[in-house]
Amino acid sequence: MFPLPEPMRLALDAARAAAEAGEVPVGAVLVHAGRVIATAANAPRGLRDPTAHAEMRVIRAAAAALGRERLEDCDLWVTLEPCAMCAGAIAHARIARVYYGAGDPKGGAVEHGPRFFAQPTCHHRPEVYPGIGEAEAGEILRDFFRERRG
Amino acid sequence: MFPLPEPMRLALDAARAAAEAGEVPVGAVLVHAGRVIATAANAPRGLRDPTAHAEMRVIRAAAAALGRERLEDCDLWVTLEPCAMCAGAIAHARIARVYYGAGDPKGGAVEHGPRFFAQPTCHHRPEVYPGIGEAEAGEILRDFFRERRG
Repeated sequence: MFPLPEPMRLALDAARAAAEAGEVPVGAVLVHAGRVIATAANAPRGLRDPTAHAEMRVIRAAAAALGRERLEDCDLWVTLEPCAMCAGAIAHARIARVYYGAGDPKGGAVEHGPRFFAQPTCHHRPEVYPGIGEAEAGEILRDFFRERRG
Repeated sequence: MFPLPEPMRLALDAARAAAEAGEVPVGAVLVHAGRVIATAANAPRGLRDPTAHAEMRVIRAAAAALGRERLEDCDLWVTLEPCAMCAGAIAHARIARVYYGAGDPKGGAVEHGPRFFAQPTCHHRPEVYPGIGEAEAGEILRDFFRERRG
């Protein structure tokens, strides 16, 4: 078994932290010039903010850290396939590459549902690399929902 | 000519303020229990935040004001058809009704492109009322882009 890339390991740690906080366990990391500049867990309940997905939080944190709206020299790592909201934000931010773990047939918008980056109206298409850390990301999600079902 | 409903007039005022600030002129208003609880202009450049569309800003402000993640008893008024990011946020927030002005064939995600609310994977569909204030919203946008083209 090969080790996972560092950003995905950090994203999986953030997903586990989300689970402990009672949030759907998804984590994300933003990399700029080879360095991690933002890490975030999914937190809509805790923050009482329906937009506070892990991807949105790292994009906003990275834009604030770099002092600019466009992140064309940044890569996003996230444990779950982004939803429509987050895929839209990724396109607006002009993120170069998206690496994600598990696919999400129910809410994903990259390889499922609206397949946003494949839409003719999508104005920026990042390179997309799915499946990295898929097993771990899926296990964290399954454990979370199994425990909640009791 | 009938007057426009108060929330759309306020949203159009916010769109004009965005234009004066050099932002693509879109404005939004959030109504809860018959009262306007948040108003915002599109501001990704000024705030250096690619997620700072008018809709995202009023949703976040309203969730903060009400202290909860779900806005199922709220209506959103916006001058332009929401994009995929904003449509996703509207669904996550469980907003009851969306009233919008001009359609957006280039970036809209309600009646154009991914038609997000019509996707089987969309977990909440608001009632949607397009075309209210369409003429004014479209004129503000056209004036803005005409002036920028010089």
